[in-house]
Amino acid sequence: MTKSPLLVVGSVAYDDVETPHGHRPNQLGGAATYFSVAASFFVRPHLVGVVGRDFHERDRALLAERGVDLAGLETDATQDTFRWGGRYHENMNDRTTLFTYLNAFQSFRPKVPPAIQHVPYVFLANIDPVLQHEVLGQMRKPHFVGLDTMNFWIGGKRDELIAVLRQVDGLVINDEEGRLLTDRRSVLAMGKELQSLGPKTVIIKRGEYGAVLLCHDDVFTVPAVPLDQVLDPTGAGDTFAGGFMGWLARTGDLSPENVRRAVVIGSVMASFCVEGFGLERLLAVRQDEVAARYERLLRYAHIPHAGELS
Amino acid sequence: MTKSPLLVVGSVAYDDVETPHGHRPNQLGGAATYFSVAASFFVRPHLVGVVGRDFHERDRALLAERGVDLAGLETDATQDTFRWGGRYHENMNDRTTLFTYLNAFQSFRPKVPPAIQHVPYVFLANIDPVLQHEVLGQMRKPHFVGLDTMNFWIGGKRDELIAVLRQVDGLVINDEEGRLLTDRRSVLAMGKELQSLGPKTVIIKRGEYGAVLLCHDDVFTVPAVPLDQVLDPTGAGDTFAGGFMGWLARTGDLSPENVRRAVVIGSVMASFCVEGFGLERLLAVRQDEVAARYERLLRYAHIPHAGELS
Repeated sequence: MTKSPLLVVGSVAYDDVETPHGHRPNQLGGAATYFSVAASFFVRPHLVGVVGRDFHERDRALLAERGVDLAGLETDATQDTFRWGGRYHENMNDRTTLFTYLNAFQSFRPKVPPAIQHVPYVFLANIDPVLQHEVLGQMRKPHFVGLDTMNFWIGGKRDELIAVLRQVDGLVINDEEGRLLTDRRSVLAMGKELQSLGPKTVIIKRGEYGAVLLCHDDVFTVPAVPLDQVLDPTGAGDTFAGGFMGWLARTGDLSPENVRRAVVIGSVMASFCVEGFGLERLLAVRQDEVAARYERLLRYAHIPHAGELS
Repeated sequence: MTKSPLLVVGSVAYDDVETPHGHRPNQLGGAATYFSVAASFFVRPHLVGVVGRDFHERDRALLAERGVDLAGLETDATQDTFRWGGRYHENMNDRTTLFTYLNAFQSFRPKVPPAIQHVPYVFLANIDPVLQHEVLGQMRKPHFVGLDTMNFWIGGKRDELIAVLRQVDGLVINDEEGRLLTDRRSVLAMGKELQSLGPKTVIIKRGEYGAVLLCHDDVFTVPAVPLDQVLDPTGAGDTFAGGFMGWLARTGDLSPENVRRAVVIGSVMASFCVEGFGLERLLAVRQDEVAARYERLLRYAHIPHAGELS
């Protein structure tokens, strides 16, 4: 396969998902999976992760067909694949984790194959910040490192997370996690404090309400695409990150204007994701649908000049 | 005073407000008060409402100095002014009502003075839908009627609310109220169902996350102005409505593009409101600050064209 500018390190999983619209017991999931599929619209991402002895050949084939390089996807023959079970409540914003079986992920130590240690765009999906740090130690001067995390690490491995954040260029975090990490409530104050921890690009995700980007001095608000129906929010954040990083890696342009575009593309990809269970909608999206929805969001968000006010 | 194109009917109150930033026991408030002050940046609104024997002359003077016409503000000499007490929690989105003393509002029947029954822009702030209906019965073919409501009426006087909505052009409602009224969760589905109840202009407010406008076939997402600090959210929704209606009344232009502008202005005025307790920040705002913040929001929300995507 051709060299690609993007690497993601994170989980590949089988999920058991219940939403008000249905129940899918063995759904291919995991942060690196959603990320890769979203990024595959723009580049051919390298994936570093681990699966177990029960991982289906058809799922490997599905990712490979999308152009995802699986050379860094280990198989642990002594364990099963990571499994997560969750139930979304009526409002689709709250969810209850029913179980988490780390399985193959329990003893996972990411190893970046030498051939891809030079990759310039790196995304550290939500895993133990100690492992995120180890991955960075294996990379050769990446150009842009993005990171996601979660409440569990903010509470349990705060110092380790703070340490790795110093080496990160872009942080993708949700509202609630941002509050835990900074104790700030207003989005601008929170964003500035997150920037002071290291990453000069900070994206605060707000679920169905969209996201706020701070990129150096630039502030950008992007709405979520207004939708008629959300079937399954699983993976939306990872899909957002995959679209965001995929676009940056494809264009190689880190100007604030292009980072705005990347955030819109993340929002667009996430909007497709939630319209179906698991990957089903995302896998059916055509390239022209991405462009069309980008244009739709652009029209939705357009503020006319004020005329006589100014 | 000169004829003005805008009338608001609603409460004038003294509030007892506690937020994490302070406690103000006798703050001038009420929906019609916040609305009028915000609208006064654009027109000289007429206010119809009631106060009690304890209403301060200085508060009457304050509104009159802003150009608010108080000819329709009755004084009930047998009662005190409406009082509301509430406490905002740490997250500033949830609040607990500590007390509601209707006082003069209990037996209030709005009477629109004959001289202003021809006013073309009318806003029915959050009061009993039966009273909202009575007000409309007193008006002579208004050009655009806006309405706000709350959970209490959606639950307790649903049929009466549905009846008045049929005569309304613009509905300003928050997320949660919209869900109660339609049982829809996704913002587009909710907005369309609200349109089917009568108003072709529907604004779904989402607090610190901004708002979504449906205006006939046009869909518009506007972010809240990202702020460093929120001191007191009281009156933000009424201030939004005042800016929105004030702009429409001033321009007399109901094109979807101008309705978008009105929504942005509502968002701008609300952002000033929450930066201080009660009316204190709003009263200090200069006209050029309104224009500057409009431009700021325009820059924040600007989505660059996609370039090679499209």
